[in-house]
Amino acid sequence: MPSYRAPIADIMLALRATGLAEVLTLPGAEDVCEDLVEAVLSEAGKLAADVLAPLNAPGDRQGSRLENGTVRTPDGFAEAYGHFVDGGWTGVPFDPEYGGQGLPWMVGTALNEIWQAANMSFGLAPLLSAGAIELLDSHGSAEQKAQWLPKLISGEWTGTMNLTEPQAGSDLAAVRTKAVAAPDLGDGVYRIFGSKIFITYGDHDLAPNIVHMVLARISDAPPGIKGISLFIVPKTLPTAEGGLGAANDLRCVSLEDKLGIHASPTCVMAFGDQGGAVGYLVGAANHGIEYMFTMMNNARLGVGVQGVGQAERATQAAVEYARARVQGGDASVRGGPSVSIIHHPDVRRMLMTMRARTQAARLITYLTAAALDTAKRHADAALRAEAATRAALLTPIAKAWSTEAGIDVANLGIQVHGGQGYIEDAGAAQFLRDARIASIYEGTNGIQAIDLVGRKVLRDGGVAARALASELAAIAERSAATLPGLQAPLADGLADLEAALEWVLSHPDAVSAQAAATPFLTLFGLVLGGGLLVEQAVIATAEAEKAAAATTAGFFLRHLLPATAGHLATIRAGAADLVALHEDAFVAA
Amino acid sequence: MPSYRAPIADIMLALRATGLAEVLTLPGAEDVCEDLVEAVLSEAGKLAADVLAPLNAPGDRQGSRLENGTVRTPDGFAEAYGHFVDGGWTGVPFDPEYGGQGLPWMVGTALNEIWQAANMSFGLAPLLSAGAIELLDSHGSAEQKAQWLPKLISGEWTGTMNLTEPQAGSDLAAVRTKAVAAPDLGDGVYRIFGSKIFITYGDHDLAPNIVHMVLARISDAPPGIKGISLFIVPKTLPTAEGGLGAANDLRCVSLEDKLGIHASPTCVMAFGDQGGAVGYLVGAANHGIEYMFTMMNNARLGVGVQGVGQAERATQAAVEYARARVQGGDASVRGGPSVSIIHHPDVRRMLMTMRARTQAARLITYLTAAALDTAKRHADAALRAEAATRAALLTPIAKAWSTEAGIDVANLGIQVHGGQGYIEDAGAAQFLRDARIASIYEGTNGIQAIDLVGRKVLRDGGVAARALASELAAIAERSAATLPGLQAPLADGLADLEAALEWVLSHPDAVSAQAAATPFLTLFGLVLGGGLLVEQAVIATAEAEKAAAATTAGFFLRHLLPATAGHLATIRAGAADLVALHEDAFVAA
Repeated sequence: MPSYRAPIADIMLALRATGLAEVLTLPGAEDVCEDLVEAVLSEAGKLAADVLAPLNAPGDRQGSRLENGTVRTPDGFAEAYGHFVDGGWTGVPFDPEYGGQGLPWMVGTALNEIWQAANMSFGLAPLLSAGAIELLDSHGSAEQKAQWLPKLISGEWTGTMNLTEPQAGSDLAAVRTKAVAAPDLGDGVYRIFGSKIFITYGDHDLAPNIVHMVLARISDAPPGIKGISLFIVPKTLPTAEGGLGAANDLRCVSLEDKLGIHASPTCVMAFGDQGGAVGYLVGAANHGIEYMFTMMNNARLGVGVQGVGQAERATQAAVEYARARVQGGDASVRGGPSVSIIHHPDVRRMLMTMRARTQAARLITYLTAAALDTAKRHADAALRAEAATRAALLTPIAKAWSTEAGIDVANLGIQVHGGQGYIEDAGAAQFLRDARIASIYEGTNGIQAIDLVGRKVLRDGGVAARALASELAAIAERSAATLPGLQAPLADGLADLEAALEWVLSHPDAVSAQAAATPFLTLFGLVLGGGLLVEQAVIATAEAEKAAAATTAGFFLRHLLPATAGHLATIRAGAADLVALHEDAFVAA
Repeated sequence: MPSYRAPIADIMLALRATGLAEVLTLPGAEDVCEDLVEAVLSEAGKLAADVLAPLNAPGDRQGSRLENGTVRTPDGFAEAYGHFVDGGWTGVPFDPEYGGQGLPWMVGTALNEIWQAANMSFGLAPLLSAGAIELLDSHGSAEQKAQWLPKLISGEWTGTMNLTEPQAGSDLAAVRTKAVAAPDLGDGVYRIFGSKIFITYGDHDLAPNIVHMVLARISDAPPGIKGISLFIVPKTLPTAEGGLGAANDLRCVSLEDKLGIHASPTCVMAFGDQGGAVGYLVGAANHGIEYMFTMMNNARLGVGVQGVGQAERATQAAVEYARARVQGGDASVRGGPSVSIIHHPDVRRMLMTMRARTQAARLITYLTAAALDTAKRHADAALRAEAATRAALLTPIAKAWSTEAGIDVANLGIQVHGGQGYIEDAGAAQFLRDARIASIYEGTNGIQAIDLVGRKVLRDGGVAARALASELAAIAERSAATLPGLQAPLADGLADLEAALEWVLSHPDAVSAQAAATPFLTLFGLVLGGGLLVEQAVIATAEAEKAAAATTAGFFLRHLLPATAGHLATIRAGAADLVALHEDAFVAA
């Protein structure tokens, strides 16, 4: 079974290349220095390597099970979660007022990569809690915050997101779960009735209580997206003293049998079978979707980081296998002895692709976290707003491009393993099975691409996108002095990005925009990833590190980035070929 | 669970576009007409839809099991195999002298697509038998042919390939299984000792005997590739009358737990634990690898066809889901009602990509089969030789490009299904899990690419590749009159192919060739697939069929083919960036 070692040096270099120093000057982060960040990451790396990673394969084999109406996670998960809570890892980026450590999201994001790489099924539990914390922090009343945040931030309780219903997947306007006011129970208290699907950690045995954040429709609410409200619906109702009281009227009725993340329970939840689940309205009625959007940037970034984590894990396993597996002669020595397959150029192409895409995805996610930190903390409101725009632009790329990288890299990892890659014992297959979900949930990658083109590019006429492109152009120029050979290919990629942007801006109708969306996002991610890899090589100082970074950037720019030409062509070809065929013509005859 | 309908009209059009009419004029095929081919395919389609496809998901769930030393296939498989044998489907392309039907490989290939689409795990049994039949037909003595072929061709017995050992995967020179002459048992009889892994249908309950074709090293044979011989090692020794005699000394010691093709037993085989398994030498000693190569074209084509089959199956399932699933408004109607997702441009992009790549892969495999038929049957020896060269050139592309298409299309199929795609019950995930093996076995796709560049392009100075490119250029020209708009993008693709060819021919060293191999094969497959899709649109006659074919070709040429630019760039960038990093630098620190 492949082990995992947190790549602390790679992570630190990527953090530095995406603005860690600046983030550590922001209000509330001034006491944090790079050494402290590195020490925190190293500590996390130990927990990940020693506790979480060894549970990854056994957890996959055993899976979570529904037994007598409650979910049991695989052996060792509850104990591991105990260690995780004891280490204070659940509260890293959250408000110290409620027990959090107030560290920047950049640090939280790097930590998240380590958890997701070590054990993605495990890592989902704190990831979902983080979403609930953010929602409450932004939109809960002072009382609600005081009541729920300390236990969520400490990890004593966990949180979930209850959004999806069978008829309401990508389109949340179709949510049907009902909320009926219960003035008998108090102000802002409702009875919730309905059923939710795909609820990650909807039930489990890691913690004694689960705080469900539930989207539901209050009786007589307007139809569609503007009639949906957000509720806190705990598994167990709290007592007046804040302890655990009566069980709420909700349960996990079944678990999904999934391609991967077997250890993470994916629940079908039933609310209100016994007269109504008690729910507490968050914020104003009918603003549920709007509230969800405020936490979406972080949640989507978190899922993008799952892609990075699985890509890193798959790369480590493939490198280990390729260094050990001896098969075939060295291409550069005629008739020589057999060598380990890492020496074969075609295997090298796979490994370099895995390495370069993993690092590019990492850089993109860290840059997004930096923008979120600046948007949240900067003293200057104008700079906060600018950073918020940057974060909004980057988020769909961070989510979709990185999860796509996770899948592709895990897929290549199987290929590097040859026949062994197809055997579950080798572990390579699990990385693909686990990574495969990340392009689907938290908004499919198609939704991300449409969000990028529609809300983030067309809406501001490409201003934010061009500002980012200029910074990448500046990186290209800066590289010329010390790293010749990187400027030109990056400039070519930037030219393709500009051309794609022009096309998108001049075809703002919904059909054209949606047709262009996916290749536009892919192209943007390629250029962004390439630029950040160059920046990483520029700022690296230690000789070996700089050489490795420059080689990786050079590989990416000369071997992967030229794919922009193909993406630009399909964008420019427009929607006509996509929509021409009648749907009946798709059916085999 | 997604059903399967054999796409008879699509298959017939693809057969016509790749030279069915010419193949049906070849010696021994003159009595076959297109109507007969269509009737045979339709009959196969019924068996596939009614018997094989319904067993696909249950077979995946149940898997094959090793019980008391023998393998039990999933419920229904043995009965289904009985129907398959009764229908005469095991003998379609084989020598009538031994009970075969002598139909062209083109027909056999189209049938194979149907079996592989309906149930890839099942389809592996006859696919492996076909390899054994070919080996014996080409290299067995008259006595061996008479003894073994009738039962293999009728399907009464099945065949396997026993090549791989733990230390001998891609590199068969490392085979260690021993063969010791047993003059006491007769001339050409040996005792076999050793262990083989990854043996598909190495044991099963579909038939009473299994004919293993085993690579082993005779005592004192030269080292390496030129000391390996080929043996017939039956599970049960035949009696003098041809019936079933004593059990041979071999067994399946364990089954692999795999990512997919769960119903297909993948055996670890032990030979000779009880004093030596009886094996019969095929042909001359030490020529085993050479013999294997003569059947490799067909076997590799057969695996390529698995990619086509799984791509077709995944496409049908995705189309069915996308037509039924209503979610979100129509992009072309502001504020309109929700529509089925097949109307969304981004979903359309996925479905058109699935459709176009499936058809392109189908065309490439059928063209390869046509070349094999011509190479085997043509009256003119020079034309036979030319066709053999064509088949040799096409085979690695058919194998690698089509299996890559199978994986990518199945992966897109999951994405089209959204959250449901990740749930095993929906069936989409199985197509990816099953398809995933095909890029690995029968020579990894990297091996195919190196074979293409090394043996098929560099060795003849690009003559065969350029001859094929000229035919594609002629297709482009012919299309101009009736299908404007296709010639130019195909010509662009051909220009990139020519440039890639030039680069490869001018960099013949092994490191450069191996570095360029994978993108060269991908590029070649894109241009070839694009050209054949145009041919298909050119020759289609029925109005609706022609329109659909032209749309699919147009989509492929304008949206997928432009990826050649990126592949050309990475070829031209050479090996330097691939090999620059020391292997230690890949290890996370």
